[in-house]
Amino acid sequence: MIRAKIVGAGGYGGVGIIELLLGHPEAKIACLVDVESVGLPISSLYPHLTGFCDMPITAASDVKASEQVDVTFMATPDGVGMKLAPAELASGAKVIDYSGDFRFNTPESYADYATRIGKDQKHASPQLLAEAVYGLAELHRQALTGKTRVVGNPGCFAVSCILGLVPAVKCGLVRLDSLICDCKTGVSGAGKKPSALFHYPARYDHMNAYKLAGHQHVCEIERELGLQSGQTLRVTFTAQVVPVCRGIMSSLYGELMPGVKPADVQAAYQAFYPAGGFVRLFNREAGIGSAHVRGTNYCNLIVDVDARTNKLRVISHIDNLIKGQAGSALQNMNLLFGLPEKTGLNQPGKYP
Amino acid sequence: MIRAKIVGAGGYGGVGIIELLLGHPEAKIACLVDVESVGLPISSLYPHLTGFCDMPITAASDVKASEQVDVTFMATPDGVGMKLAPAELASGAKVIDYSGDFRFNTPESYADYATRIGKDQKHASPQLLAEAVYGLAELHRQALTGKTRVVGNPGCFAVSCILGLVPAVKCGLVRLDSLICDCKTGVSGAGKKPSALFHYPARYDHMNAYKLAGHQHVCEIERELGLQSGQTLRVTFTAQVVPVCRGIMSSLYGELMPGVKPADVQAAYQAFYPAGGFVRLFNREAGIGSAHVRGTNYCNLIVDVDARTNKLRVISHIDNLIKGQAGSALQNMNLLFGLPEKTGLNQPGKYP
Amino acid sequence: MIRAKIVGAGGYGGVGIIELLLGHPEAKIACLVDVESVGLPISSLYPHLTGFCDMPITAASDVKASEQVDVTFMATPDGVGMKLAPAELASGAKVIDYSGDFRFNTPESYADYATRIGKDQKHASPQLLAEAVYGLAELHRQALTGKTRVVGNPGCFAVSCILGLVPAVKCGLVRLDSLICDCKTGVSGAGKKPSALFHYPARYDHMNAYKLAGHQHVCEIERELGLQSGQTLRVTFTAQVVPVCRGIMSSLYGELMPGVKPADVQAAYQAFYPAGGFVRLFNREAGIGSAHVRGTNYCNLIVDVDARTNKLRVISHIDNLIKGQAGSALQNMNLLFGLPEKTGLNQPGKYP
Amino acid sequence: MIRAKIVGAGGYGGVGIIELLLGHPEAKIACLVDVESVGLPISSLYPHLTGFCDMPITAASDVKASEQVDVTFMATPDGVGMKLAPAELASGAKVIDYSGDFRFNTPESYADYATRIGKDQKHASPQLLAEAVYGLAELHRQALTGKTRVVGNPGCFAVSCILGLVPAVKCGLVRLDSLICDCKTGVSGAGKKPSALFHYPARYDHMNAYKLAGHQHVCEIERELGLQSGQTLRVTFTAQVVPVCRGIMSSLYGELMPGVKPADVQAAYQAFYPAGGFVRLFNREAGIGSAHVRGTNYCNLIVDVDARTNKLRVISHIDNLIKGQAGSALQNMNLLFGLPEKTGLNQPGKYP
Repeated sequence: MIRAKIVGAGGYGGVGIIELLLGHPEAKIACLVDVESVGLPISSLYPHLTGFCDMPITAASDVKASEQVDVTFMATPDGVGMKLAPAELASGAKVIDYSGDFRFNTPESYADYATRIGKDQKHASPQLLAEAVYGLAELHRQALTGKTRVVGNPGCFAVSCILGLVPAVKCGLVRLDSLICDCKTGVSGAGKKPSALFHYPARYDHMNAYKLAGHQHVCEIERELGLQSGQTLRVTFTAQVVPVCRGIMSSLYGELMPGVKPADVQAAYQAFYPAGGFVRLFNREAGIGSAHVRGTNYCNLIVDVDARTNKLRVISHIDNLIKGQAGSALQNMNLLFGLPEKTGLNQPGKYP
Repeated sequence: MIRAKIVGAGGYGGVGIIELLLGHPEAKIACLVDVESVGLPISSLYPHLTGFCDMPITAASDVKASEQVDVTFMATPDGVGMKLAPAELASGAKVIDYSGDFRFNTPESYADYATRIGKDQKHASPQLLAEAVYGLAELHRQALTGKTRVVGNPGCFAVSCILGLVPAVKCGLVRLDSLICDCKTGVSGAGKKPSALFHYPARYDHMNAYKLAGHQHVCEIERELGLQSGQTLRVTFTAQVVPVCRGIMSSLYGELMPGVKPADVQAAYQAFYPAGGFVRLFNREAGIGSAHVRGTNYCNLIVDVDARTNKLRVISHIDNLIKGQAGSALQNMNLLFGLPEKTGLNQPGKYP
Repeated sequence: MIRAKIVGAGGYGGVGIIELLLGHPEAKIACLVDVESVGLPISSLYPHLTGFCDMPITAASDVKASEQVDVTFMATPDGVGMKLAPAELASGAKVIDYSGDFRFNTPESYADYATRIGKDQKHASPQLLAEAVYGLAELHRQALTGKTRVVGNPGCFAVSCILGLVPAVKCGLVRLDSLICDCKTGVSGAGKKPSALFHYPARYDHMNAYKLAGHQHVCEIERELGLQSGQTLRVTFTAQVVPVCRGIMSSLYGELMPGVKPADVQAAYQAFYPAGGFVRLFNREAGIGSAHVRGTNYCNLIVDVDARTNKLRVISHIDNLIKGQAGSALQNMNLLFGLPEKTGLNQPGKYP
Repeated sequence: MIRAKIVGAGGYGGVGIIELLLGHPEAKIACLVDVESVGLPISSLYPHLTGFCDMPITAASDVKASEQVDVTFMATPDGVGMKLAPAELASGAKVIDYSGDFRFNTPESYADYATRIGKDQKHASPQLLAEAVYGLAELHRQALTGKTRVVGNPGCFAVSCILGLVPAVKCGLVRLDSLICDCKTGVSGAGKKPSALFHYPARYDHMNAYKLAGHQHVCEIERELGLQSGQTLRVTFTAQVVPVCRGIMSSLYGELMPGVKPADVQAAYQAFYPAGGFVRLFNREAGIGSAHVRGTNYCNLIVDVDARTNKLRVISHIDNLIKGQAGSALQNMNLLFGLPEKTGLNQPGKYP
């Protein structure tokens, strides 16, 4: 059994991986670490876990938190994983970090991102950047192996946009200066901490755009799409919140290159996403939406061409807390430990 | 493997048991029957099942629907199961029926219920009533065995009320003429069929009482509580709908008998519901609600006494589509086939 | 024009009275006071007021806050109004206070309440208690006149319960030891301040009971119903939250006294609530709910008898922020200034 | 007093204009017409109107429906207004039609639209097309006068997109082949009739794109923007539904023409929308969303430039049932009868 430690266990990202690990046949939870609620059973914070996981939360300084594990999930904000990773690695654990700490491979590209989020440009463990792998398996499956020690789990918006645009960008189907990502997220994406914006009365029956001056996930979208296209590129990105708990719906647009036909587009996506993976392709007639991926690790793409205006249009749906966070983390763990990619992730959600 | 047929596969009750069976290690879906959408894969009605269950819907008259199975789930409205059950039984299948058709053991008690719902008082298969078992395992576990052929799965409101009141009634803790069931249900309890009352704009930010003249679930609540107490009794029952999808919260009240103390109440509930079952007990300080049983077969009870007014007060939470329907059905199947009761039902839900 | 000052302008209670005063033909807003956001226009906190009310928020210590007004709405928590009221009254303003500070007429009854909410039992202005009027016009219209100086605006749950039970209690139709108030509130009742319980992901699709050990509104319900019945009494009260923004639905129960008939009940309610007031009566067949009073000062009552169990059952609907707070406050202001009671309150809401 | 008749009174568009007319100082409701619920008081369909408007619904064939009025609101689907308008006009009433029947000025442009919605290309009253005015006052105020007899009230999506893009298009700030309208609507936009897509359990916590093959509002967006720019143009349009009741949020994109600076953009919008009108301008830092226009006739625009990608980005918010329907209709009535444009429309909404 793979022994897993979860740092930041008390947040939505922590409880998400706990839920998934409880149903995983080859892994078990060894330790829950957080800075708040130390000593309390996790089930007192999350009563739905009563009887399933009543393990107490441990402080990072506690001896229990230093016991040997095989993998450490850092379900922590930016800046934490980069400080704790070296000790985890030294103890023999692999590290899968949810934040932006290990999504960039050079100090320079990290510095760009850090500036965007108002953090110190200096990375605390720059020596690890070169070996860190961007944890979106659909793009980097070959690099996610038993030798991988550090994974930078992708951002939720980034997962939806990159998966929706990669085939088009990689195959040169769209003008790289025309990309628009119009993204709507459910409220759980903002995490567990209450705030005026996500207070129920202020959020029900309400939708709004935010961070118009620039959202930090743009960095990794541009970096990953740039790597796939072989060129640097920029995208117009609009983050919006709607009164949904779980789900991201990204509407992705690009101007088709001269001569590209709808059939070319469909062929490119089908080639990139063979049947049986976590990305499922639908056409414009499909009546699908965010509830159809809720509670799962799937990404549903509607791949469409607006022939009247010669535009590619892709509608990308994920569950922001699973494919956008804990599910991708578990998918990465499976690959790092040589397990089938879908282990513990192969269920439909519950509907309605 | 237990081969299961689902009649009424296209409704919420049908898709609920499909989802559960897909995760059950000892059962598999053999056939999906419905009167609508015949020939279409179930995943075209419920796209979240794409890749998990793409089996087409079969008409009852189709030869496929007559293949031998081990259990037939009748996820059908009142009046259907009583007509189809004899043929299913003759072919060797056990029948678990979701409607009121087999919740009563005599033609007379059925006739009372039928009057209440405006149906013909005459049962189509009266010869089966005596052997049918009311499928609430917490009360009738001993009668749910390999010999059982017909199960009347309980109504969703009834599950929440009966589980919440049985220990008090059985132990004589409350005046039997003082029982009040104030019940709030999520909208999924009304099923899949659109209606003016459950149209999103008419339902969001709205709560209301309905069927004040009498709800059909009262019959089985009074019957089951009466059997447990050894006396006939009547309850005041108020059905209400709130803008929740899944969940029932029933607030249950009764006047304490002279001399009954809070500790007597707690002791009675703890004795009736030993740890490890699907009913979990909490006290008045617990911060629990409907989301903590969502997606699961659990019933969470807050057992409380209002000492100022000498009243028992129990808050009962279930997921109306699982413990209130498909989950209880699967729990019953497990018992009928000698499997551990929690097989395929032993997961926490996903939160938030 | 009546000049109005609002203390606590930045909360939901403050913005509620601002909205109503903007549409009132005989009153105008003179001053907005709060302890937070001083100097900012109220429309920066509540952008829907842009162009309608861009007045800045003033500190209580500011000279602007001391200008002469005719009425001061204290939209403030317990303990504030009792300290500020004497100075307001000395300046010639009448005081309408939202909290429990002036809902009780004796130091002793206030002390009971204060204990319940964990506050100091000593009232800061005990000399004002005797003259304060409980501001539920349907009960105390005669006492709300030009001579009234201090009004204790009622609690939201209390409004719904008292209006729903008063005719029955006053006319001796029910056993006074059998009253049960099962109340469900929308989330706005908890105010503007974010908290873990009302964070959107924790609140959507979720319902729960809270404060089972005792809710402070019980004090005024028992006091007012006791006054009307001429006897002391106690009620069983259960507070619950459902994912609605605005609205309270209270299900009220009592055992009918021997010989009381359904027609007696209807007659008592019709006599107490003549047509044309803010309380509208409906029967059990009416398809009404909380959305039908949303945005208005109306209270809709379904008056019903469960003949099978000999129980009175009343379903009471109000908008907790209007009839439960700012609307009642304005209704009280109208009476204190000799205006028709419905001035500025006589509109239907918007539906859906 | 302006006497108003409402045809289609029982739908959301009908009740919307009823609510507004009840608060209008210069108009009164003379007659309510519908094909369903004839004879019933409108308040039995919409209980919130009890006591405010209990007028019965009349059949179009009833003599009451033929009484002389000054204005007829046709709150009816496509194809109805074009048949009934001639008789209304002959009787001396002005006609304000909610559908697409009078949004186009030539038989040819109507035929294009009719094809899009699957209707007969032949207009039933082609002689009226030339004089019909597209009822978006911000563009056609000069043509909405006492002489105007027929108004084609605009589509809800169209209002949000046209208002958001007109200044840019008119001033030549953006490439006309680069326009993208990414639109999210609340569910009330689909009207009162229940359907599988808008059934509460299928709609809560769910978002999806629809009509990707082409939405009918595109016709009028392209026509109106084309008229303003002096060139024909096409837009990429994506309709999406989110679990909101009231509100449209349209994210509008266009590539800036060479040399256009952010200040040019701001200047163009400020010039086109002077302060005091129904369109309010905000910058990217403003924390506004759909709830801040809910219940009002306002359109809030965030006018923004993404300098990194040289794109215009406008976020446009309206209440689809007011500025997107009944409110614009009343605004048009005011202009046709020489009243100040904001009469009866000059209130903020209620928040939260």
